[in-house]
Amino acid sequence: MSAHFLHDFLRPKSIAIYGANNSYGTTMGTMQLIRIISSGYKGKIFPIHLKLDNVLGFKAYKSIAEVPEIPDLVIIVLPPKVVPQVFKECGEKGIKKIVLISGGFREVIGDRANTLTEEITKIANRYGIRFTGPNCFGFYNSWLYPEDNGIFNMMVWGDGLKRGKFSVASQSGTMSSHWGMDPESLDVRVGKSISIGNEANIDLVNFLEYFKDDEETDVIGLYIEEIKRGQKFIQLAKEITRTKPIIAMYGGGSGAGNRAIKSHTGSMAGNLKVFDAMIKGTGIIKTDYIEEFLDIASILSNPNFSYPKGKRIGIITNSGGPGALIANNAERKGLIVPKLSESLQLKLKKILPPTAGWLNPVDVTFDMNIFNFYTSIPKMLMKSGEIDAIIIYGAIGFHETMPALKENEKIGPYIELREDMAERMDEMDKIFVAPIIKASQKFSVPIIYINPQNYACHWSKKIREQ
Amino acid sequence: MSAHFLHDFLRPKSIAIYGANNSYGTTMGTMQLIRIISSGYKGKIFPIHLKLDNVLGFKAYKSIAEVPEIPDLVIIVLPPKVVPQVFKECGEKGIKKIVLISGGFREVIGDRANTLTEEITKIANRYGIRFTGPNCFGFYNSWLYPEDNGIFNMMVWGDGLKRGKFSVASQSGTMSSHWGMDPESLDVRVGKSISIGNEANIDLVNFLEYFKDDEETDVIGLYIEEIKRGQKFIQLAKEITRTKPIIAMYGGGSGAGNRAIKSHTGSMAGNLKVFDAMIKGTGIIKTDYIEEFLDIASILSNPNFSYPKGKRIGIITNSGGPGALIANNAERKGLIVPKLSESLQLKLKKILPPTAGWLNPVDVTFDMNIFNFYTSIPKMLMKSGEIDAIIIYGAIGFHETMPALKENEKIGPYIELREDMAERMDEMDKIFVAPIIKASQKFSVPIIYINPQNYACHWSKKIREQ
Repeated sequence: MSAHFLHDFLRPKSIAIYGANNSYGTTMGTMQLIRIISSGYKGKIFPIHLKLDNVLGFKAYKSIAEVPEIPDLVIIVLPPKVVPQVFKECGEKGIKKIVLISGGFREVIGDRANTLTEEITKIANRYGIRFTGPNCFGFYNSWLYPEDNGIFNMMVWGDGLKRGKFSVASQSGTMSSHWGMDPESLDVRVGKSISIGNEANIDLVNFLEYFKDDEETDVIGLYIEEIKRGQKFIQLAKEITRTKPIIAMYGGGSGAGNRAIKSHTGSMAGNLKVFDAMIKGTGIIKTDYIEEFLDIASILSNPNFSYPKGKRIGIITNSGGPGALIANNAERKGLIVPKLSESLQLKLKKILPPTAGWLNPVDVTFDMNIFNFYTSIPKMLMKSGEIDAIIIYGAIGFHETMPALKENEKIGPYIELREDMAERMDEMDKIFVAPIIKASQKFSVPIIYINPQNYACHWSKKIREQ
Repeated sequence: MSAHFLHDFLRPKSIAIYGANNSYGTTMGTMQLIRIISSGYKGKIFPIHLKLDNVLGFKAYKSIAEVPEIPDLVIIVLPPKVVPQVFKECGEKGIKKIVLISGGFREVIGDRANTLTEEITKIANRYGIRFTGPNCFGFYNSWLYPEDNGIFNMMVWGDGLKRGKFSVASQSGTMSSHWGMDPESLDVRVGKSISIGNEANIDLVNFLEYFKDDEETDVIGLYIEEIKRGQKFIQLAKEITRTKPIIAMYGGGSGAGNRAIKSHTGSMAGNLKVFDAMIKGTGIIKTDYIEEFLDIASILSNPNFSYPKGKRIGIITNSGGPGALIANNAERKGLIVPKLSESLQLKLKKILPPTAGWLNPVDVTFDMNIFNFYTSIPKMLMKSGEIDAIIIYGAIGFHETMPALKENEKIGPYIELREDMAERMDEMDKIFVAPIIKASQKFSVPIIYINPQNYACHWSKKIREQ
């Protein structure tokens, strides 16, 4: 297991929390403790509250001094002005790890200079405390106890997520937890996610160092507003992307974006060109939109997806328009959509309808030969050695459509369902998808399926579960 | 009502269809007739079939000559080589309108020259037949009988869609019907959608001419691979965008994209720069991704959305990161995110928490003051006259979360739900959203809500339904 100090930071054996009460929707601390409990945390929980005797079923303490042991991690969600005092009390108690959720340390603008960050930094240094924040959203760790699926989640959302090896470090709380807002649709398999906030003590580079050698991390996601240790960041990113892909979003760039960031974390974001120049050559995959970030995260965090060895994309589609759009966007993003060799074209032509396309994109048109679409054609492309990854557009499910037709009073009495289709419906995933995903792993040619229905529908889920 | 010949083309009083049988999933004709029936078409249906006596519950005829009346529209889904003969028989019968679904007319490549298009064009001219296709997917018209919500849909998907005034003309069948593949999530309110195919007889410009003065069309969507009458297209687009927005996707541009198009429709697509130069100055909104196209269509086709009068965007967010990303992307796309005036900042500051941002983006941070977020702040922005449209990020619903918490055995027994929240939950849309949408119409400042949960969840739907 990793010897990096952050490894244990993310695996608290017991916690104390300031700022939680019993009333839903009143404080962030309450929302976070609710999530810690509902995510199934099995360690001890010590709420600290001046007035309450119990918080969400746990005995509460008036101060950290009264807690009968030294909690492994302290979470603070209090007004900023009381935080230095709380830090002192934690230091006296022997606390070494803190998550400081509260904002208001340097991001307040238009008021007089604020020295709270300097104050807590001094106290932390005196007592040997390491902390994330201020102005953060905490963290999520689905590898708390790998042996029994232990999850530690203080991020308000994200229950019911599948565990994976996608690890996130984000300078925005929302961006560190966006995958948790619609887990069923997005299906991003998150391992660890950390909202690092204003980086008064632990910064982005610390997390990159940790993720680099972490066995529970295969893919890294970053949301960046400001990089404090630029040279170190570039060097680390270059080393990491040789074995683990990094996807990144940048929140700076425009006048209003930078204004938002200054108001948000107080940091001086740079110019988009500077950022682009900085990450050029690091191998980082830059994304512009949240959906794009989450889509790529969903793909890369799926254990069936192996990172492609090159840039040559094979496109299989049931429709010309989407085939053209995918080809265009792939080339626009620097990928290659090669024309297939004469001999491969000949093989494809033999099994395709006469109106089909076989140059790449391979457009099967409206052809109900499901075996060709899902199995034979992808396999031909893989075996050819001519492409490094496959995109299949039109992986549409009929699991909802066919039963609905049978029940439709205008259609049901008259329609004959093809026996083989009806019979195979329940096993389509096992018959058509599972074998080709095995082949995909054998040939190291990953497949991306696009189902225009949506991510959450039955057939999309079935494909992802193979 | 519109006097354009396409108006009646899209409102058939009776139809004949070639190529449908009783077996699900065997032919496109069958899939299309299923949809025509299930969408509730009330006109007469005459299937033409050489062998069957009945098709999907309707008496079938051996030839069009045997049909006891002259059908208003004929749909042909047959192998291309028999189509000239069928065209002749239709001409003899007195048919004037045809939808020619079949492909294989000019898009076959690598074989000898194909003169089928010329043959059917001659026949159509001789008999005064107008037709869409070949190589198309038909059309959808939710304004068939406006008085009783009559829908005519031959597009395989799209049942259950809300009617609207978004009209589509597309050179790809899939792109003409993509909104129908996930109607609940996408919520694009389509009025008319036409797959125009290879344009042997009716082309894109014909549809632009029709949509221009059509009272049932407020917004236009185009998917373009090739523009045959360029000058006319540019002139029409310029005229139309003065009153009706046009969004367009272009399928050409890259080497592989053009190859896909050549194989798809046989047309010679151009270069992306040429296309960009062509639409520059027309006011057309260009989109690169299908999701982008559908998102914009969903927004513009919502009857609550009035087209903004200018480019100044006000951003309201509950989180700094998304605020910065929205601001960046807005500016990157040519919109303006102005810093708010001192006096407006002062007003906002009074009702916001001290850690909030009030320059624009307005970042309320984690603040449970729902009234401020949904009502007061948007209203302040509208009244100010400083912005032309509002984006609200973080319109998250608690309708699923709160009941789930009450039932959670680890949380339910201990949590107190704020009375006002629980009480207002069911009426949140009426209390918080409805009044501001009314104000939005009064001030002509549209609002776009972003709910990171997803489009299909309860709260997203409630917002869209106001």
